[in-house]
Amino acid sequence: MTNLNECLSATGVAMNKELERLLPISEGPEGRLQAAMRYACLDGGKRLRPFFVLQTAQLFNVANQAALRVAAAIELVHCYSLVHDDLPAMDDDDLRRGRPTCHKAFDEATAILAGDALLTKAFEVVAAPPTHSDPAVRAELVLALAEASGDRGMVGGQMFDLMAGEITMDVAAVTRLQNLKTGRLIGFSCEAGAILGKAPHQQRQALRAYAHDVGLAFQIADDLLDIEGDPEKVGKELRKDAEAGKATFVSLLGVERARAQADHLWRQAAAHLDVFDEKADLLREAARFVVERKL
Amino acid sequence: MTNLNECLSATGVAMNKELERLLPISEGPEGRLQAAMRYACLDGGKRLRPFFVLQTAQLFNVANQAALRVAAAIELVHCYSLVHDDLPAMDDDDLRRGRPTCHKAFDEATAILAGDALLTKAFEVVAAPPTHSDPAVRAELVLALAEASGDRGMVGGQMFDLMAGEITMDVAAVTRLQNLKTGRLIGFSCEAGAILGKAPHQQRQALRAYAHDVGLAFQIADDLLDIEGDPEKVGKELRKDAEAGKATFVSLLGVERARAQADHLWRQAAAHLDVFDEKADLLREAARFVVERKL
Repeated sequence: MTNLNECLSATGVAMNKELERLLPISEGPEGRLQAAMRYACLDGGKRLRPFFVLQTAQLFNVANQAALRVAAAIELVHCYSLVHDDLPAMDDDDLRRGRPTCHKAFDEATAILAGDALLTKAFEVVAAPPTHSDPAVRAELVLALAEASGDRGMVGGQMFDLMAGEITMDVAAVTRLQNLKTGRLIGFSCEAGAILGKAPHQQRQALRAYAHDVGLAFQIADDLLDIEGDPEKVGKELRKDAEAGKATFVSLLGVERARAQADHLWRQAAAHLDVFDEKADLLREAARFVVERKL
Repeated sequence: MTNLNECLSATGVAMNKELERLLPISEGPEGRLQAAMRYACLDGGKRLRPFFVLQTAQLFNVANQAALRVAAAIELVHCYSLVHDDLPAMDDDDLRRGRPTCHKAFDEATAILAGDALLTKAFEVVAAPPTHSDPAVRAELVLALAEASGDRGMVGGQMFDLMAGEITMDVAAVTRLQNLKTGRLIGFSCEAGAILGKAPHQQRQALRAYAHDVGLAFQIADDLLDIEGDPEKVGKELRKDAEAGKATFVSLLGVERARAQADHLWRQAAAHLDVFDEKADLLREAARFVVERKL
């Protein structure tokens, strides 16, 4: 996996540079807001979603600048959701990526506003002309990003998660919850390249199917890490789900069956890419990586 | 002002209908999120921003459906900002439009998520094809809405407001704060009709100038109401600014000079509309209304 690791690391560097450029600090008092936005976005995370955007975009020879902007926008959405998720009224987490969470480093009000501004910035970045010369592509990207992250996507999944204690959670319910909470945005990350590249229907469908399986595999791996991971390495508190008695893939299936399911899913994800040539090799490797990662 | 009152009331009815249509409730547990979104948006507010969109749109014979969707999107942004503004970590308000605030009627976590989802929905609505047949118009609207409401617009203004206690606030600073916090979104409301109608530069400039003066006049009137208003009629707690020792136009200028300034501003706003014929009469009246309203 040398190539994949190198590529992930290069994606991280490129993403940081792009986000730095997109998040300048103003002179006025709103500078504090922008500092909180940068704190929540820069120098952190696996940048897995940006990786998916950049890799799927290069399947269709999309300009690097375009792909980087959309990748940054998705990362802005992902980071805003973490900032709000960590708030005392939500998961009440003190640690994220090995550092104090945004509301700990700043304060609650600033963290709420920083999340709001990051989400807004994501749409600003996608809609702006440098993202693509064709405004139809930009409008389609905005629409797909909004659908993936709103009440019928990511935020709906977060609400579902909050309600999970009051619902009988079987494997079907956990699958639906996770598809909303993380799957839809990962799905958009993989589809964004196809939208940017105006890809034919069949290839776009293949990427959608790949994203679906990778997203689910990613979540099962997350549940396994929550049980078996090293908090030092993962950079956040672990075993919170188990302590809260939350239904997860692991609590419902057991460790062995969950691992087998994740294994099955990454292979199936890779198989969806058969319509592409060796340009998709890193995406194939990434499917395995999301399952075998240690953080 | 009979016509204006009738028009505002008709705008309220049309807006409610449009928002109801745009905010359906799902079967799953995310239905609670959608119920909170509807609670925060339906049956409330003066619908002043939608009024500006609809009135400026009809100057350029924009289809009613298009204007209604953009008006709804702006109202979604306005309502999300109120939900987050009312949170305990922010203004900690219990009452809004004469009813319990969203986090009181539901809970804090749901209110945070409802705000997030309302903001996301706004961009979804603007970017979707029914808003305008030309995707360039949709992309431009998304960009302008994001710029007006993000860290260099409304959210920046909210941060500024939180920091105001630590800054020497003179009239220039309060003007800048209010322009960010409320002026930019009111400005976009007036410009949206021109974008939808692909208006010539001069007319777009006139509407921008009108919006600038109306926005400021609106805020001075708000400050006056905070001092002199009847909390029963206004539907929210008053005199909070004065009790917190916050600098406002009224605290800096005194009641008389503030009123004179508001009076000057609405006349100046109306004068910017000289480039339009009698089709702009309701906008001229509205400039006066924002100053003389009692709620």
